[in-house]
Amino acid sequence: MEDTTRQDVLKRLNYIEGHLGGVRRMIEEDKYCPEVLKQTFAIRRAIEKMEALILDGHLHTCVASGIRDGREDEVINELMELYDLANR
Amino acid sequence: MEDTTRQDVLKRLNYIEGHLGGVRRMIEEDKYCPEVLKQTFAIRRAIEKMEALILDGHLHTCVASGIRDGREDEVINELMELYDLANR
Amino acid sequence: MEDTTRQDVLKRLNYIEGHLGGVRRMIEEDKYCPEVLKQTFAIRRAIEKMEALILDGHLHTCVASGIRDGREDEVINELMELYDLANR
Amino acid sequence: MEDTTRQDVLKRLNYIEGHLGGVRRMIEEDKYCPEVLKQTFAIRRAIEKMEALILDGHLHTCVASGIRDGREDEVINELMELYDLANR
Repeated sequence: MEDTTRQDVLKRLNYIEGHLGGVRRMIEEDKYCPEVLKQTFAIRRAIEKMEALILDGHLHTCVASGIRDGREDEVINELMELYDLANR
Repeated sequence: MEDTTRQDVLKRLNYIEGHLGGVRRMIEEDKYCPEVLKQTFAIRRAIEKMEALILDGHLHTCVASGIRDGREDEVINELMELYDLANR
Repeated sequence: MEDTTRQDVLKRLNYIEGHLGGVRRMIEEDKYCPEVLKQTFAIRRAIEKMEALILDGHLHTCVASGIRDGREDEVINELMELYDLANR
Repeated sequence: MEDTTRQDVLKRLNYIEGHLGGVRRMIEEDKYCPEVLKQTFAIRRAIEKMEALILDGHLHTCVASGIRDGREDEVINELMELYDLANR
């Protein structure tokens, strides 16, 4: 991962951890469940955005160089395995 | 939320926070991106399981009593709003 | 399902079938894959909207009457089973 | 798209169209909504599998050759745009 990507990913991770702490407080204070769920949905969305950043970096580095080095099947199979996992 | 549900939700939240800390270390140690992504996918799945628990509790308490009290449209519209949000 | 809901669901089904026929033509004519994928994503979204309509109807009829009739656990367990399936 | 991929994609499309016809009959015959929803979930899953096939083909053809030809930014940006769309 390039340094600028890592900084950006860690910044998003900070935000996600803070957001999760907010959800903990909501649950401890017995907030209305639909309000809690709206926040957990937002956290999952934030994780997805962080994943997009990581994936974009991976495509520009390991995947691109793997394809240029003739390891096309290896890097593409790995991508498809991730795709299956992301869709469960 | 009932006490047993809240205990269970908080336990899962602890697990999710620990898992997220593991992802932070992976990124700081520059682990291979597909390995990081597999962990963030697992975290999102764990959040979804926690949401299912919260939703199940909500249905058994607020939704059931709302329907019994004649506030059917109110609680169902709220559920459908959550459904749309969950599917973005 | 109430009649107005069924009419609406069948109308959406017509649209989805037509859209799928368009995807078939794109594939037969060897259109650019990302363009095909944009259309299949739109079809999945249209199916989700149709599902929301069916779910909304189900909540207002079977779930509401089930809760009023004291079969709360039965109808809620069924909902949670659907929820798990929808999220795989 | 290569010929073997296209044949496979069209075969899956046939299956999806048949499955959708089954859902239409269920709705016309007023089947129980949760049963209908289980089928529409299965159809969305079948579309996702078809999409995986199309994506895999795209990665092995256009993306791999684009990266070899120095059009890395173009093909990766297009992939990330698809990724965002798939996650809405």
